[in-house]
Amino acid sequence: MSGGTQAGAGVTDVLVVAPHPDDDVIGCGGSIAKHVRDGARVTVVIVIGRERSALDDAVTDEEFAAETEAAAKALGVHRCIRFDEPSRDFALSRRVHLDLVRVLREVRPQVVYLPHDNDDDVEHRMVHQLTVEALWMARSEFFQEAGGPPLPAPRLVLGYEVWAPMARFQYAEDIGGQIETKVEAMRAYVSQLRHAAWDEGVRGLARYRGAVSSGSGYAEVFQVLSLTAPPPPAAAGGGGRD
Amino acid sequence: MSGGTQAGAGVTDVLVVAPHPDDDVIGCGGSIAKHVRDGARVTVVIVIGRERSALDDAVTDEEFAAETEAAAKALGVHRCIRFDEPSRDFALSRRVHLDLVRVLREVRPQVVYLPHDNDDDVEHRMVHQLTVEALWMARSEFFQEAGGPPLPAPRLVLGYEVWAPMARFQYAEDIGGQIETKVEAMRAYVSQLRHAAWDEGVRGLARYRGAVSSGSGYAEVFQVLSLTAPPPPAAAGGGGRD
Amino acid sequence: MSGGTQAGAGVTDVLVVAPHPDDDVIGCGGSIAKHVRDGARVTVVIVIGRERSALDDAVTDEEFAAETEAAAKALGVHRCIRFDEPSRDFALSRRVHLDLVRVLREVRPQVVYLPHDNDDDVEHRMVHQLTVEALWMARSEFFQEAGGPPLPAPRLVLGYEVWAPMARFQYAEDIGGQIETKVEAMRAYVSQLRHAAWDEGVRGLARYRGAVSSGSGYAEVFQVLSLTAPPPPAAAGGGGRD
Amino acid sequence: MSGGTQAGAGVTDVLVVAPHPDDDVIGCGGSIAKHVRDGARVTVVIVIGRERSALDDAVTDEEFAAETEAAAKALGVHRCIRFDEPSRDFALSRRVHLDLVRVLREVRPQVVYLPHDNDDDVEHRMVHQLTVEALWMARSEFFQEAGGPPLPAPRLVLGYEVWAPMARFQYAEDIGGQIETKVEAMRAYVSQLRHAAWDEGVRGLARYRGAVSSGSGYAEVFQVLSLTAPPPPAAAGGGGRD
Amino acid sequence: MSGGTQAGAGVTDVLVVAPHPDDDVIGCGGSIAKHVRDGARVTVVIVIGRERSALDDAVTDEEFAAETEAAAKALGVHRCIRFDEPSRDFALSRRVHLDLVRVLREVRPQVVYLPHDNDDDVEHRMVHQLTVEALWMARSEFFQEAGGPPLPAPRLVLGYEVWAPMARFQYAEDIGGQIETKVEAMRAYVSQLRHAAWDEGVRGLARYRGAVSSGSGYAEVFQVLSLTAPPPPAAAGGGGRD
Amino acid sequence: MSGGTQAGAGVTDVLVVAPHPDDDVIGCGGSIAKHVRDGARVTVVIVIGRERSALDDAVTDEEFAAETEAAAKALGVHRCIRFDEPSRDFALSRRVHLDLVRVLREVRPQVVYLPHDNDDDVEHRMVHQLTVEALWMARSEFFQEAGGPPLPAPRLVLGYEVWAPMARFQYAEDIGGQIETKVEAMRAYVSQLRHAAWDEGVRGLARYRGAVSSGSGYAEVFQVLSLTAPPPPAAAGGGGRD
Repeated sequence: MSGGTQAGAGVTDVLVVAPHPDDDVIGCGGSIAKHVRDGARVTVVIVIGRERSALDDAVTDEEFAAETEAAAKALGVHRCIRFDEPSRDFALSRRVHLDLVRVLREVRPQVVYLPHDNDDDVEHRMVHQLTVEALWMARSEFFQEAGGPPLPAPRLVLGYEVWAPMARFQYAEDIGGQIETKVEAMRAYVSQLRHAAWDEGVRGLARYRGAVSSGSGYAEVFQVLSLTAPPPPAAAGGGGRD
Repeated sequence: MSGGTQAGAGVTDVLVVAPHPDDDVIGCGGSIAKHVRDGARVTVVIVIGRERSALDDAVTDEEFAAETEAAAKALGVHRCIRFDEPSRDFALSRRVHLDLVRVLREVRPQVVYLPHDNDDDVEHRMVHQLTVEALWMARSEFFQEAGGPPLPAPRLVLGYEVWAPMARFQYAEDIGGQIETKVEAMRAYVSQLRHAAWDEGVRGLARYRGAVSSGSGYAEVFQVLSLTAPPPPAAAGGGGRD
Repeated sequence: MSGGTQAGAGVTDVLVVAPHPDDDVIGCGGSIAKHVRDGARVTVVIVIGRERSALDDAVTDEEFAAETEAAAKALGVHRCIRFDEPSRDFALSRRVHLDLVRVLREVRPQVVYLPHDNDDDVEHRMVHQLTVEALWMARSEFFQEAGGPPLPAPRLVLGYEVWAPMARFQYAEDIGGQIETKVEAMRAYVSQLRHAAWDEGVRGLARYRGAVSSGSGYAEVFQVLSLTAPPPPAAAGGGGRD
Repeated sequence: MSGGTQAGAGVTDVLVVAPHPDDDVIGCGGSIAKHVRDGARVTVVIVIGRERSALDDAVTDEEFAAETEAAAKALGVHRCIRFDEPSRDFALSRRVHLDLVRVLREVRPQVVYLPHDNDDDVEHRMVHQLTVEALWMARSEFFQEAGGPPLPAPRLVLGYEVWAPMARFQYAEDIGGQIETKVEAMRAYVSQLRHAAWDEGVRGLARYRGAVSSGSGYAEVFQVLSLTAPPPPAAAGGGGRD
Repeated sequence: MSGGTQAGAGVTDVLVVAPHPDDDVIGCGGSIAKHVRDGARVTVVIVIGRERSALDDAVTDEEFAAETEAAAKALGVHRCIRFDEPSRDFALSRRVHLDLVRVLREVRPQVVYLPHDNDDDVEHRMVHQLTVEALWMARSEFFQEAGGPPLPAPRLVLGYEVWAPMARFQYAEDIGGQIETKVEAMRAYVSQLRHAAWDEGVRGLARYRGAVSSGSGYAEVFQVLSLTAPPPPAAAGGGGRD
Repeated sequence: MSGGTQAGAGVTDVLVVAPHPDDDVIGCGGSIAKHVRDGARVTVVIVIGRERSALDDAVTDEEFAAETEAAAKALGVHRCIRFDEPSRDFALSRRVHLDLVRVLREVRPQVVYLPHDNDDDVEHRMVHQLTVEALWMARSEFFQEAGGPPLPAPRLVLGYEVWAPMARFQYAEDIGGQIETKVEAMRAYVSQLRHAAWDEGVRGLARYRGAVSSGSGYAEVFQVLSLTAPPPPAAAGGGGRD
């Protein structure tokens, strides 16, 4: 009923870069589900591994991995890639940049999601920086060791909010039809919910964002980091594009 | 069950400065109700009058005033003062500063609430500026035309969020026991809810703020603009200290 | 040859808000010409009148008006509206907001251009503030004295650069095919060029922006202030849109 | 005569995190002395070791350590912990975070001091970041390798100024009764004073801050980074207020 | 003994723009005295008049004017011009801009002082804005109603600190030889000192700035707002300049 | 014909710190040529080595080094020092700080150029930070392992623009007489120009900056990071300086 996403038209591939497991759900889980509904393949990269000292006995690595998988499945994520960088020892090396360049050139997304530039967690800000830089690298002719031909500029690069909401946003996605899916995905993180009621937290934020952005319903809001020109309508119907 | 507000102990008077009707409810309605529960008198100043062209036929001035009254009553507000400054012609004159100085010196609040310094509405930012300046003026020995002796420094001056959530906050108030009162006060603005579901919006934001600040429940979060020393325990209970 | 503008597909109406005559040419003259080429009607609002003390004898009001007209004609502007607010006595009143709301509701643009939020001239920043506020007002159901039904959210709202280039931009328009038209429009301001070589200045900035944004050619770059969802492809080919 | 510190009532433990030796004295030496006077134990953590190339012959490590000890003694510091991280090779590793979490869980402070978020030295800003992160970690149930049960939220977290004074502050501490102690502690750093007259510098800044914040005397001013609710009066101990 | 001011070489005229009486002394009183010592004429413009409600009975207008005069005399100010704009009703009109343009074109200063761009008083920030704009206007060929030929670009435009010290500064003036004169000028404001010990406050800040900027002594620090090329040494000794 | 640079008078040595080869040409190539014309020795430090994966086959290391040399020669650079830090693995260690301190103490520049503090490339911002820190270190009595006596404060420290133009600048250098030399130096980077037309890009930016700063011609604009007092005119004519 409500319109498709901005990139809904002709979008085949979407990439979401998440600092930690569940940041993708909190930040843009509703938009992921909407892209999937519209027929796109959504790939999620989780940069940093599980917090190593998170009550190790209580939850095994297998159980935790199963939670991530269940959340991804709930949203309809096509593929989930884990870099397993060390939590709180994470550094922005050439290697991790190239790892992300490789993924970008493989997935060739038209839409990219990453944490916004002022989130209230230092690892979120580092992953913002990493992704912005990797996007530049992936589009250049250099860095051939990461394989693949240069990435065409994604149509839209969006910053999402997790720990710090944005004072200003430039794009709002109506997720009225996806809010229950988003909450369900959040609930797949059973071990996390013991510590914080993020399932109700994400529903709450989406409700507030709905009221602020359109007067009702549920929404996810984003910082527009980059927008490029879609083909003109004639070309769109005809074939090739620049 | 949950603790009192920071200033709950020994607070007798609270002042809330709102740019427009209902900003007090959205920004700190739960905290107002909590102050009232703890025995404080809460005074609300609404600086700017009703939007003059808000579908004038649909709601009469009397109906609109009745809504404001009903909201104040729901929260337990002691007194509601309207300055009726003209919407979108509002300017920061000496006169309006003195009007607010007069109220500050009469109410002599220990806690003051105002919009935070980066809210996403120009009139909210003007009322922030007005209140910060009026607090300085009220505390000085000058401006005797506003009457009253100088105001002692309030114990706590807090900035609340309405249109733009804060990227960082310094104080969170648990409003788990007041959330339904807050939503009810919001619903008193029947004519406003036709345009935006602020009743559900405020509940949603409080839920997100609860999850972020303490892992669960409902919260209102604030920018700490000024904090001064509370009375020494001697005063509090008998003994001497510095 | 090069692709159309972002909003090129299906855009029928564009509004450019300029603080002073020639800011529209400097900030987005190439994009205006591109919209015109793509079949859109472009309306320009010039908020502030001619600097009253600009060497009054040297250029008559008629000569100056003729220059503005010639520049608009060079770009293919459909209609140029002058508010003639007083230079350096300009204030953000309710009246001037309603004047702009009226234009917005008449033109009903899909794309809006205004100065970016940090331009290095106080009147440019005031016109930024005015336009953001007027966009909100025009979209609401209130302010019926400005006439017209509420404005649908424009597809794209873009901030342009004049006196201060932007440290970061989110959208770049290739104006390789329009640069000569832009320079020609600039040269229509004969009396201005006596004081500053803006004709060569705009060509220079466009060249730098071309090198930075795509490696060559000429570009205008923009701050993305608001983006809303375009119709899904089916709708695009079929007819109606949200 | 003058009031106690904000956290003076019922404060038993205070933690000061200093990037280098003497930053604690410059930033909050007067407040430290006041806490000590009020009966609190003050622990100081010095994160980074002595500048290795500071004219090594002139002052031995023993002499330098003796200076630090003398300064701490002058203020009445309970315990001084040195992490001895390498100067100008300092990095924010997981290890150093856990080291600080361990101290936080042992000391269990009600008040924490750290450099403000915009001090004009990169290592000061890194220690700000480290402390904010360690506070979050110490309060969580994770990171059991750092020992101890989770830290209750400190009542007050304050940012102090050393190299860059703050444009805005939210809390001022009257140190009229402690200024001589602060200057004396500063003078214990005999080898430092050869290079800069910080003893007179800190007296000067305190005098300016006194004039600005209360019209006279001496003050230290702070950024309020976090404030939490004290126990309600009943819980506090039976009668009076916190 | 210590070197001259930056603009000491060949400076004949200096203009200081002060929001209120005494801001010139607090912000750059030492530098004023140093310019005077070096043979320059210093003109002070005080934009806003005496606070109208400042305990009117205690100090007459004549007494207050005498204080301002005494302070100016202590520093060696050549001429003090009062605009007497209304306090807290001050607005940035075309008229007040032209008033300042007129002074700029008469005085033709090589060095200009004004409040820095982030001082903690709204009228200070307005006077910053006013002066930056008036400098632009004075240098243009327009605004002939303000008289005089266009102003050559001043060699140096500096922002001084009063209510909010600067986080970063770009220029420090050694005022070791002028600090007593500065304090004496401050003490001329007898009626002001009853309310705040600014005489000791300015000495304190200068001492801190001395320690931070050069390790000892007294200094005033400044934001560099504009710097233009001084004459090459040959020209400096010989005569003309570009 | 046009005046000398700000530091033209009596400047014997200039240091330019460039993150990568060609940043010196883009950021301040015209000013370098002007210093050389005025008789100064200009030393360039290039901190980060050649991008290792830049189409390695197409251009050999020798060919690339030859390009850098040709560019330096075109500008008249006295000496070019390469640190060859690893691209995208660059970290701010003590070692690299000391390397730059050593150069600073050897060259003893009166004028220093570095990237401005907000350039749009993370390595540019790191080199800004590195240089600011190394300047402080070089001026102190410590760090004797870097050799040399302490550096006197440079007369002028300027931030230049490459990837992100500055919103505000404080100093503009007229490079009308050097623009062709700058473009020629840029063209020496034959292998770079295959990817982006930086030769025309730098000409364009200089043209825009000329129009904005003086109404015509070509200019480079700078952030003033530090300015210190030159000797008074007598001393200037006489001989020694501090």
